[in-house]
Amino acid sequence: MTGTLWGVGLGPGDPELLTLKAHRLITSATVIAYPAPAGGQSFARAIAAAFIPATAREIAISVPMQTARFPAQAVYDRAAADIAQHLDDGRDVVTLCEGDPFFYGSFMYLYTRLAARYPCVTVPGVTSMTAAAAAAGRPLCARNEELRIVPAPLAEDVLQARLATPGAVAILKVGRHLAKVRRVVERLGRAAGAVYLSHATLPGERVLPLADAPETAPYFSLILLPGDDPYGQ
Amino acid sequence: MTGTLWGVGLGPGDPELLTLKAHRLITSATVIAYPAPAGGQSFARAIAAAFIPATAREIAISVPMQTARFPAQAVYDRAAADIAQHLDDGRDVVTLCEGDPFFYGSFMYLYTRLAARYPCVTVPGVTSMTAAAAAAGRPLCARNEELRIVPAPLAEDVLQARLATPGAVAILKVGRHLAKVRRVVERLGRAAGAVYLSHATLPGERVLPLADAPETAPYFSLILLPGDDPYGQ
Repeated sequence: MTGTLWGVGLGPGDPELLTLKAHRLITSATVIAYPAPAGGQSFARAIAAAFIPATAREIAISVPMQTARFPAQAVYDRAAADIAQHLDDGRDVVTLCEGDPFFYGSFMYLYTRLAARYPCVTVPGVTSMTAAAAAAGRPLCARNEELRIVPAPLAEDVLQARLATPGAVAILKVGRHLAKVRRVVERLGRAAGAVYLSHATLPGERVLPLADAPETAPYFSLILLPGDDPYGQ
Repeated sequence: MTGTLWGVGLGPGDPELLTLKAHRLITSATVIAYPAPAGGQSFARAIAAAFIPATAREIAISVPMQTARFPAQAVYDRAAADIAQHLDDGRDVVTLCEGDPFFYGSFMYLYTRLAARYPCVTVPGVTSMTAAAAAAGRPLCARNEELRIVPAPLAEDVLQARLATPGAVAILKVGRHLAKVRRVVERLGRAAGAVYLSHATLPGERVLPLADAPETAPYFSLILLPGDDPYGQ
């Protein structure tokens, strides 16, 4: 009997936004894996910290903070091998994932390596995107509006083409791309109603008009642009 | 002291996908509101049923199943007035919302009517979209891919224009629009890898290649189209 690999979404940061299912899986886990920046603290582990059993074995997947290329294939090869050992020995492995595992999540790199050989179950979580909309008091999209989700690291001309069509937009992974995004949004005349958020649901949460956003933004920040009919009226 | 209006996301259907926060708010609620189709059962109430206190007062917001125009303004005017009465009397009102309240949710119709006069807090939930990706074993989007969320009720030519550009797509509210969506997807040569899902996380869950989808789809069904790099490899 091999173990099961669980990819468990933790939500945007507030531990109370874990699902009941995530809570059950974590509190009863014997092996827990999570991504951790090389030399830094794991955000995923911090979200779930209060629920991790003292007896659980922990696998910290040390992810280099390289920005030029990803994923770090060798890192996930090694993590998959470590996890496979536990699964072979019949132990389930609960992998902690910020937000939702399959919404821009790194869990997919383990999933692609292990899902053909072991039972793998993904448990969805609350995304930072809908948490940000809640924090801003602003519906993301209404009725038959389209919503585009656009990662900020795209090149400026690509970003501009993506934001040129009307409709609601969520721009993720803003971080060091804030100045570029702001330029594009202003050039397109979409700055009115644009909202900047960082650390949604966490103690340092900030919600500001894009024009008032700080010069440097943390990685976990995003920008929401309203559609034509943001309240479905 | 007026009460607070809570808009509480319940997730896609499995009661275990409620957040800990939603669970706390519902189990301690004195007044609970939820949408219910005229003459039918409330899906939102069904998701939360096991957690609703027997002592809670319930406000069923009877929403006509009209498809031509929405929202039913008069219905939400009346519901807002009913809820305001409780808030004026100092009682909190917990509004149950399928999925996430601000992701195509009807809670925004109460929010726009009441947020200027009363404290209103939105609690995000797991969307059917990420739950569907989990059920299909298919990441929604990776790395710097764009994700477009497109409601199926759009006109066929609009839908075709929206799906013509590359990138991952989630098509929501498929229901009676299935045949139209399938025509567009096939015409654009995007049928390979397209997945149809209904009732994600519920006992009747179905996950099928789009080509094998049933002739008639329930309202709560969706279609996922992969992007260029669905596993971020």
